[in-house]
Amino acid sequence: MKTSNSTFEEIGKILSSAGKVLIFPHVNADGDAIGSSAALCRVLRKMGKDAFILIEDDIAGNLKFLDDGLTTFDMDALDADVSVCVDCGETGRFPKRADKFMEAPVTVCIDHHGTSKGFCTYNHIDPGAAATAQLIFRLIKAMGVEIDKQIGEAIFAGILTDTGSFRYSNTQKETHLIAAELYDSGIDAATVAQEIFETMRMERLRIESRAIETMATLHGGKAVLAYVTQKMLEETGASMDETEGVVGQLRSIAGVELAVFMKEYGPEEIKVSLRSKKYVDVAEMSSHFGGGGHERAAGFTLRCSMSEAFDRVKEYVMNMAEMK
Amino acid sequence: MKTSNSTFEEIGKILSSAGKVLIFPHVNADGDAIGSSAALCRVLRKMGKDAFILIEDDIAGNLKFLDDGLTTFDMDALDADVSVCVDCGETGRFPKRADKFMEAPVTVCIDHHGTSKGFCTYNHIDPGAAATAQLIFRLIKAMGVEIDKQIGEAIFAGILTDTGSFRYSNTQKETHLIAAELYDSGIDAATVAQEIFETMRMERLRIESRAIETMATLHGGKAVLAYVTQKMLEETGASMDETEGVVGQLRSIAGVELAVFMKEYGPEEIKVSLRSKKYVDVAEMSSHFGGGGHERAAGFTLRCSMSEAFDRVKEYVMNMAEMK
Repeated sequence: MKTSNSTFEEIGKILSSAGKVLIFPHVNADGDAIGSSAALCRVLRKMGKDAFILIEDDIAGNLKFLDDGLTTFDMDALDADVSVCVDCGETGRFPKRADKFMEAPVTVCIDHHGTSKGFCTYNHIDPGAAATAQLIFRLIKAMGVEIDKQIGEAIFAGILTDTGSFRYSNTQKETHLIAAELYDSGIDAATVAQEIFETMRMERLRIESRAIETMATLHGGKAVLAYVTQKMLEETGASMDETEGVVGQLRSIAGVELAVFMKEYGPEEIKVSLRSKKYVDVAEMSSHFGGGGHERAAGFTLRCSMSEAFDRVKEYVMNMAEMK
Repeated sequence: MKTSNSTFEEIGKILSSAGKVLIFPHVNADGDAIGSSAALCRVLRKMGKDAFILIEDDIAGNLKFLDDGLTTFDMDALDADVSVCVDCGETGRFPKRADKFMEAPVTVCIDHHGTSKGFCTYNHIDPGAAATAQLIFRLIKAMGVEIDKQIGEAIFAGILTDTGSFRYSNTQKETHLIAAELYDSGIDAATVAQEIFETMRMERLRIESRAIETMATLHGGKAVLAYVTQKMLEETGASMDETEGVVGQLRSIAGVELAVFMKEYGPEEIKVSLRSKKYVDVAEMSSHFGGGGHERAAGFTLRCSMSEAFDRVKEYVMNMAEMK
């Protein structure tokens, strides 16, 4: 049901004529979801609208600086004329708020995911954009509202997050041009970067270290495997999501082509994350084990013990033709 | 003896009329020194000059991709018409090559360090530039040479290094504008970033983990102390310089104001690195122990055992008025 995109001018008009607007970032919101939401919310309030970001789960600690009376858990905060979902393209990404979203007479979706459904009255979906925040930037320009420091920093936070600080291949010329323009609004880019990238729980550092200590190499260091167990989480006080950076650290080792990180979610539930650098197709490896993903990042789940899972994965990697 | 800056047009003319040019990055060259040198060397060769980057120590592993027949250790590689030092502003930064540098009838310095001496025939020193690579970019534009993919990637590498991937406060609007323009020359920015930031020895990850495991907190987590011993280095196979990132990791913990990292260089030689986030003056703490530094980054050396050093530092931190 994906429809052709509405222009930012059309969406801008809809928002300009609304009185009450609710903004819906996805659950487990990242810097792009919160940054995009915060920028849009501030713009709408600047225009005199009643606007809130409706959330259903806590904002991550390192993103709280972007919220300043913008978010609410209160489903009755307002009856919106327009609902806007950002950085997500289906109601399953905000399950507890789905009914509330659809209640509004007009719905809008602004997203950069290729999987976006285009399910709203107005949709602007651009998988070519490095971040949804880039689309919000363009929308604000189309609406003719001046980007102040706080709006600029929210947009910058979104870009910084989704481009991995301008390092990922999704970064475009336009990304840098937007960043340059944001400097004109007086953003303190270094502080935004510090808030986002340098605010981690001590438990996270501890679990990362414990996981790194489990490293085992194969094929003379071309493949590296590591794992985390429930016991390790208990001992460090960390949560499983605090291990999300480990597989990237494994891949960053010189000479490593394939990084495998195995996470024990339960006694018979091992989630395996795969990353490759240049030539190993991890989507193929993942599909062998019933999972999915992309060429350079994929994953699958095994229903067995960690030690059995480790052996099965190790054996597979030992026999990979590409690694020989 | 700092003189007023020569313009890029003047320096461009000098280089254009030269036949043989030697380029001098500083010792322990970082991405900006090598990136700037490589970009300039490629431009000069493109113009038909004999040009080399003369070095006296090995290029770091993660920067080797920038070199492709550009560097030489051979002091007799050529007798230069013009010597150019980049990203440094005194001969002490290339001690073994100092005489060779001064032998050329014309010398040029292009640098962004405020401490630069302006000791050359022509100097362009701009402490406001985020990276020397930005100055090289402007020089190349003044010389009218087209920036191709390889030149662009060398400049990008310099910028990426010295701005911490566009995160440091030295990053300017112009930095992003240059990055945007480099995309026009077809740079593969993601690969450059991967080479620079994602090429670390496994031993480095191991020693970082071991050091993180020694973390002890004081003042309810506002201060954190960690250490590394010779034994830990032996067990992991890492070198001491591979622990350079640890103190930054300690500081990046949420709630931490003061990070202390203690390195055992010898049985009676403990070097202590200090970092603070917002309000603790670590230069003051450092001077108490006979060291020096800045408000947010300082260090000192203790001539005692690790356990004695740890106790002394811990006691001092326990009694710091600012932490209470």
